[in-house]
Amino acid sequence: MDLERSPLARPFPDLQGIDGVTLRVARARYKNWDRADLTFAELAPGTSVGGVFTKSACASSEVELGREQARLGKGRALIVNAGNSNAFTGFRGREAVEQIMAQVAEALGCEPSEVFVSSTGVIGVPLPKDKAREGVAAVLEAEPCGWEEAASAIGTTDTFTKGAGASAMLGENRVALAGIIKGSGMIAPDMATMLGYVFTDAAVEAAFLQEMLSKANAATFSCITVDGDTSTSDTVLAFATGRAGNAPLTSWDDTGADAFYAALLQVCRDLAHLVVRDGEGAQKFIEITVTGAESDESARRVGLAIANSPLVKTAIAGGDANWGRVVMAVGKSGEPADRDRLSIGFGGTWAAKDGQPLADYDEAPVAKHLEGQDIRMDVDLGIGDGRATVWTCDLTHGYISINADYRS
Amino acid sequence: MDLERSPLARPFPDLQGIDGVTLRVARARYKNWDRADLTFAELAPGTSVGGVFTKSACASSEVELGREQARLGKGRALIVNAGNSNAFTGFRGREAVEQIMAQVAEALGCEPSEVFVSSTGVIGVPLPKDKAREGVAAVLEAEPCGWEEAASAIGTTDTFTKGAGASAMLGENRVALAGIIKGSGMIAPDMATMLGYVFTDAAVEAAFLQEMLSKANAATFSCITVDGDTSTSDTVLAFATGRAGNAPLTSWDDTGADAFYAALLQVCRDLAHLVVRDGEGAQKFIEITVTGAESDESARRVGLAIANSPLVKTAIAGGDANWGRVVMAVGKSGEPADRDRLSIGFGGTWAAKDGQPLADYDEAPVAKHLEGQDIRMDVDLGIGDGRATVWTCDLTHGYISINADYRS
Repeated sequence: MDLERSPLARPFPDLQGIDGVTLRVARARYKNWDRADLTFAELAPGTSVGGVFTKSACASSEVELGREQARLGKGRALIVNAGNSNAFTGFRGREAVEQIMAQVAEALGCEPSEVFVSSTGVIGVPLPKDKAREGVAAVLEAEPCGWEEAASAIGTTDTFTKGAGASAMLGENRVALAGIIKGSGMIAPDMATMLGYVFTDAAVEAAFLQEMLSKANAATFSCITVDGDTSTSDTVLAFATGRAGNAPLTSWDDTGADAFYAALLQVCRDLAHLVVRDGEGAQKFIEITVTGAESDESARRVGLAIANSPLVKTAIAGGDANWGRVVMAVGKSGEPADRDRLSIGFGGTWAAKDGQPLADYDEAPVAKHLEGQDIRMDVDLGIGDGRATVWTCDLTHGYISINADYRS
Repeated sequence: MDLERSPLARPFPDLQGIDGVTLRVARARYKNWDRADLTFAELAPGTSVGGVFTKSACASSEVELGREQARLGKGRALIVNAGNSNAFTGFRGREAVEQIMAQVAEALGCEPSEVFVSSTGVIGVPLPKDKAREGVAAVLEAEPCGWEEAASAIGTTDTFTKGAGASAMLGENRVALAGIIKGSGMIAPDMATMLGYVFTDAAVEAAFLQEMLSKANAATFSCITVDGDTSTSDTVLAFATGRAGNAPLTSWDDTGADAFYAALLQVCRDLAHLVVRDGEGAQKFIEITVTGAESDESARRVGLAIANSPLVKTAIAGGDANWGRVVMAVGKSGEPADRDRLSIGFGGTWAAKDGQPLADYDEAPVAKHLEGQDIRMDVDLGIGDGRATVWTCDLTHGYISINADYRS
């Protein structure tokens, strides 16, 4: 099936290379297609790793192994297979992952636990070992490539390639970050989502890299949703090669730690937004800010209840400022709320305040705002100081077409 | 907007009258339409009441008041307003409900607390008191009508009228039950859903009626979902007039209690199924049975995670036995599950067993089954004895058309 490029797509940014990271792609032909579908990022010795993974109870072997490897904190390679998620494939699936880890480790002269593997695509078909073996052999010999080519090779139903970059000053050292990501369906909250990778030449101790990644994840990837459906393979990994020469970051007290975190957060947020912008069938990008909640986490849950409501999402698709459906979603979230203190606005205009429609509500600026591509919704619960912002897209005929009209 | 009759519709059943219940309808014209939109069920003195209501934190005044009234357990009247839900309307909405209660109580010579009021329709517009006053005056004088007319008058976006009946022998006494219901969107699990009313001439003590209704609700209305969106006004009420002359049922030990509960359960299940059959855009009715869960409640939550997954629902719409999406939904449910013990089948044919696709999986009978209108899915978690059955419909272009292409 040929998918049209999302109307919310962004051009691929001009990302610089990251010292200590070499990218290569090859054709393993995991599906019957003629495109690069196997991506290899070679990482300099000494690269530290942090990772966040799906909370699915049916996670793939890649996720199970990756979780253990991230705990060790050392990475020399990342392999990404596109076209087959290898999830729900039992011991045969696990054997395929272990084969890839061993093959790459032997070529690089490192431990298999330093080789991270991700797979994305159809669930329930074991990753073919022969294709994987030949593909890995080819990718080890391939010419180095750039970020856009790698971002393209990890994609499946994505309609555009997605990357983001940032830099930060760590004392005298400028460090660079580059990230790529894939995902457009089976995207849901409450965990690291999709396949996303952030690379930096900064020196960051693994435990602290993990801490910062988890914190950034909570405010970015865990705050987006396309369809409320959580993948069995979601993975976000951060690799720090240390080639920038800064004194390794080990805690928030270190010079440049805040600057580095700000850059990491920005890259994660940019990548998360790009996934929403490629949400299946998306025509509008929706930012929902919830304030006045009992806690930040409660605000996030309320935001996601709104963002996951098919009635809210279809209303936005139709340009309808149907704040009654927002009331419904707040009510069903299960979070503390007081109907008579609830306020709802669109694009900076309040439609309802303190549990009642505004007497002088002017729908004209709201209707105008909803005609646009970037929609902003404000929901104030009026009971506390908790706040969160979440992002989603609208629900359109395109989503149905992609997921029902075509066979997977 | 003119909605086509659901392809899953059922003809209205031949329901007998219930001794002690008199039905009347009138035109309050809550919307700009020419149809009966105000329904009045007059109940004989001594009628006992049980009720279950939405768990929404933003419930309407009707629900707040109804919950208190149901606790008292006595009913003389039910008024249902269609076209305006009166939810999220603050004190003005509450005043309208209290006005109706007072007006009917005065006419019948009963307590206002014995007058139950429900409203359904748009959220955020206070129920107009003048229309309500004139409408109630008219309905109090109207000619009695039958079940189908009443079921039609409580409907809003419903594409067909919905009713169900049953009878039971309580010792020597045959008692009858009749129920009506409305609902097709904003239908979600984990609470009493929609507006549903069951009437019986049996004598049942209020506390026991409540106990039986709550139990039946847990296995029926709380096990259906159309879109995972929970209304602010969901209400199910059971009224027992006592005119059948049986010795009042007060506990499970009483003669006929089991028979009465079986009949009540049947009516609730039939009504719940009818709501799913009128799910917005529904083309297929889906029954999902989950076995082998840690507990019955866990099985229900897993079932609803599957039933609410847009990827599962669109796959069924497309006739695609995409059990990988079922794995995903089980994984995201947050309930105990073991990937390597999970089995999934369609229409009685297993597609995956113990965490792997079946080697000799024959897709032909499954594909044939998925062409039909009534789809059955079996999910065995393989870790315990918990089981539950839930019901939903598929997700189609019709849902998007109803909720996005037309303004509310």
